Amino acid sequence: MTRKPINLNEKYAKFTEHWSPKVVAEMNDYQFKLAKIQGSFVWHSHADTDEVFIVIEGQMSIDFRDGKVDLKEGEMFVVPKGVEHKPFAEDECKIMFVEPRGVVNTGDAGGELTAEEDVWV
Amino acid sequence: MTRKPINLNEKYAKFTEHWSPKVVAEMNDYQFKLAKIQGSFVWHSHADTDEVFIVIEGQMSIDFRDGKVDLKEGEMFVVPKGVEHKPFAEDECKIMFVEPRGVVNTGDAGGELTAEEDVWV
Repeated sequence: MTRKPINLNEKYAKFTEHWSPKVVAEMNDYQFKLAKIQGSFVWHSHADTDEVFIVIEGQMSIDFRDGKVDLKEGEMFVVPKGVEHKPFAEDECKIMFVEPRGVVNTGDAGGELTAEEDVWV
Repeated sequence: MTRKPINLNEKYAKFTEHWSPKVVAEMNDYQFKLAKIQGSFVWHSHADTDEVFIVIEGQMSIDFRDGKVDLKEGEMFVVPKGVEHKPFAEDECKIMFVEPRGVVNTGDAGGELTAEEDVWV
């Protein structure tokens, strides 16, 4: 039986909206999610988990209260649990991120950018 | 304070050996590891955890007792816990994989390809 790989570009082609995470894989109780982002997200933190960002295409930055990190294709960063952060991308950027199942994208902040959980693509 | 991203190509430039996983990031109790692979690995399984393979450059396949999956750059696959598998790459392939801290690369199989754990690059 030949199994089908998860092709990231094929997955990205299936949605256009920004800041709307789509699950592509699960490993134990963790999920791998894709998103297209553009503009500023909201300041938020996740009290119970670290969060990994991997840039698949484009460039983004993550602002912290005391600085920032700039990320381009082929770069990743781990935001530690409890640390306030605000993702930003001037132009559309394709990212993958990894976090436990059930994590809400806006963390403690809520608001209109809060996405439905566990949406697969 | 400007934080430094984890640049995968810079990390790959720091080692040449095959089948020797290098940790580049930790998220909670999980590790993101890079490896360069070429040739056949050993049949093995991990009784307690799924294992994620992401191809960063090149091509690889993972053989299963009942089939296989072919993976190229930009593709990923989750090997479920307990499932015997044997990674293979004809030409050198750069992969990232994700699994809990403490997982041994050869799983239940052991042998000469067993790598030292928790080696960072």
